[in-house]
Amino acid sequence: MTKSYLDHTAATPLLPEVREAMMPYLGDIFGNPQSLHDWGDGAREALEAAREQVAGLIGARADEVVFTGSGTESNNLAVKGLALAQQGKGKHVVVSAIEHFSVLHSARTLAKWGFEVSEVPVDRHGMVDPDDVRRILRDDTVLVSVMHANGEVGTIQPVKEIAAITGDRKIPFHTDAVATAGTLPVDVIALGVDALSLAANQFYGPKGVGALWVRKGVRIIPLLDGGIQEGGRRAGTENVPAIAGMGKAAELARQHMAERINRLVPLRDRLLKELAARIGHVVVTGHPGNRLPGHASVCVEFIEGEAMLMLLNGKGIAVSSGSACTSRALKASHVLIAMGLPHEIAQGSVLFTLGIENTDRDIDYLLEAMPPIVDRLRQMSPLYDKFMKASRGGN
Amino acid sequence: MTKSYLDHTAATPLLPEVREAMMPYLGDIFGNPQSLHDWGDGAREALEAAREQVAGLIGARADEVVFTGSGTESNNLAVKGLALAQQGKGKHVVVSAIEHFSVLHSARTLAKWGFEVSEVPVDRHGMVDPDDVRRILRDDTVLVSVMHANGEVGTIQPVKEIAAITGDRKIPFHTDAVATAGTLPVDVIALGVDALSLAANQFYGPKGVGALWVRKGVRIIPLLDGGIQEGGRRAGTENVPAIAGMGKAAELARQHMAERINRLVPLRDRLLKELAARIGHVVVTGHPGNRLPGHASVCVEFIEGEAMLMLLNGKGIAVSSGSACTSRALKASHVLIAMGLPHEIAQGSVLFTLGIENTDRDIDYLLEAMPPIVDRLRQMSPLYDKFMKASRGGN
Repeated sequence: MTKSYLDHTAATPLLPEVREAMMPYLGDIFGNPQSLHDWGDGAREALEAAREQVAGLIGARADEVVFTGSGTESNNLAVKGLALAQQGKGKHVVVSAIEHFSVLHSARTLAKWGFEVSEVPVDRHGMVDPDDVRRILRDDTVLVSVMHANGEVGTIQPVKEIAAITGDRKIPFHTDAVATAGTLPVDVIALGVDALSLAANQFYGPKGVGALWVRKGVRIIPLLDGGIQEGGRRAGTENVPAIAGMGKAAELARQHMAERINRLVPLRDRLLKELAARIGHVVVTGHPGNRLPGHASVCVEFIEGEAMLMLLNGKGIAVSSGSACTSRALKASHVLIAMGLPHEIAQGSVLFTLGIENTDRDIDYLLEAMPPIVDRLRQMSPLYDKFMKASRGGN
Repeated sequence: MTKSYLDHTAATPLLPEVREAMMPYLGDIFGNPQSLHDWGDGAREALEAAREQVAGLIGARADEVVFTGSGTESNNLAVKGLALAQQGKGKHVVVSAIEHFSVLHSARTLAKWGFEVSEVPVDRHGMVDPDDVRRILRDDTVLVSVMHANGEVGTIQPVKEIAAITGDRKIPFHTDAVATAGTLPVDVIALGVDALSLAANQFYGPKGVGALWVRKGVRIIPLLDGGIQEGGRRAGTENVPAIAGMGKAAELARQHMAERINRLVPLRDRLLKELAARIGHVVVTGHPGNRLPGHASVCVEFIEGEAMLMLLNGKGIAVSSGSACTSRALKASHVLIAMGLPHEIAQGSVLFTLGIENTDRDIDYLLEAMPPIVDRLRQMSPLYDKFMKASRGGN
């Protein structure tokens, strides 16, 4: 069967070069980087090389990069670790309403620990207004966390503008850059943030590894206590093969970023344009221009996204209907609801996220497979029936 | 140069079968286990197969196994997660004095959060007396954590006896079995514990993956908030290749456990016996009989363990001088100090941990290389000089 994988937010294939970079550490170089003998040397060198590569991807210093086990862990470490480190100064934390659950639920945990959490709203394009952040700040605000781009609707946030505001107030600002780092140019200095999360599995690197960049001098309380790994900021034996893979993936992302973006944007634009033309009643979610390059998120009216996903899967096409972390929970997307989409529109959420191995043939195949499925689903929809009767009545 | 790797507590080589088991998930089966489409299926099946294999290793139910990123994370999740879940009932936590830092420092974090932490002492063999645990329990004790065996001195603790005491009082009991699971028979039902930590890199599995077994019905607060992975107990995209590797390593450990133990014990016994005969003034640390099979920990009098480690490294021999997580911190071992060893003995700590690829030739080589190094170091030791003069004076 023709296979078309269009769900790169959920998982990216590992690049062969990345796998090759990992192999020595799944073989002869098995030592513990903390060992003082020669067996530790190769592992330690791999760690430090990867740290340079990841730092290079985001314009940071290597010693500011903390390797973690996932983007989720990076976000937990940032939100809890920065807030706890600052709690002597206050207990107010600000997050946007459309953060990933690893940020939102970390904030919820902070609330259980006596913090007060404010949510900044977003507009109908999923965009945060920096003035809203300015207005919500208080004298006891000790952390702001607004993501760089949203993985569900692709909207890129005005992080730099928000950082200017938090910087003036000397409030630590964390951004979850899991959706952008390795995909779009990210420069921590230019952005002006204090901490930034990234995950290798978003840019053709391995699962099981992420990183948190923390600006030198910004205090953070570790989430994992124990040994002295990662400068005392994250205990536990380092996942050397995965970290080496993340380093290689970061290097490749940096080298090929422009060409990847130049390939993805026209594919995405073609998909959005032709899909709307072929099936009608398609609402593009997220910002029309300011969005992730390979990211096409829509709500197809009068159908349910989950049903769409299943029928496309039957044709060998992988898409998702919201975040991978919650897809099996089958709940309405908090992101679409925060953007003010009515529930009956939000339920039709279908997310196409393109990757570097996709070509026009994948788009051709999707555009051919999808219209009959949409027709079939709409025929079964009472809402569609009502809509069609109303339309006919109106003529 | 002849190479002899005798530091399996710091790191074990990955078995070729384990690497093979990981490879599909570093290749075509790259999907996210949470995805609803076919690409998620292979990843999800790998997860669930590995969960069965790990559960099988410890006599548990698969749905009680939570995959984590390391033994350290498992211990952090257990100590913090169980204590926080119980804090309505009380805020007293008990740990042994010789726990791994991932347990001790987690307990220290609990202390910052308003818990009171009591440390159970150990005897000169590094053994906890269950009666000491009984005496230290209070009405507000909500967690006891005593390790199954200590990775520095090899002593196996009376976990079953302690569990009988905590079980009577209905106090959750966690054991850090990182040093034993995959090495010795571990059966969670027979032990009677409520939670048990393990790490793949201790039994020829990959780095970057551990597990926490939590008995069904025992409440635990997650450390990593976010998605619904691991039954809501540990958020973050699952490290599928590493988890598949851990499963395979668990299966192999279970199949070959008896033969591995039968190979390791005579090697270890020979090492300890002949080493003492050849260099003299060797104090075996840990319990003389009740210890890990491949574990030979000693203090060599009148030398410093770190210097010994470096000179053995010069001969191509890898050993350690305490825990790998702290070896680069160069502090006196809290374990040896808790066992009452005088500082001047404790500083001579050398740890030989044998693995399944070691043979008599490794022991031969060590026994040949070590005496001249010991002589050389002792010639430089003022303490040895003093001792020799006193010995001669006594004749």
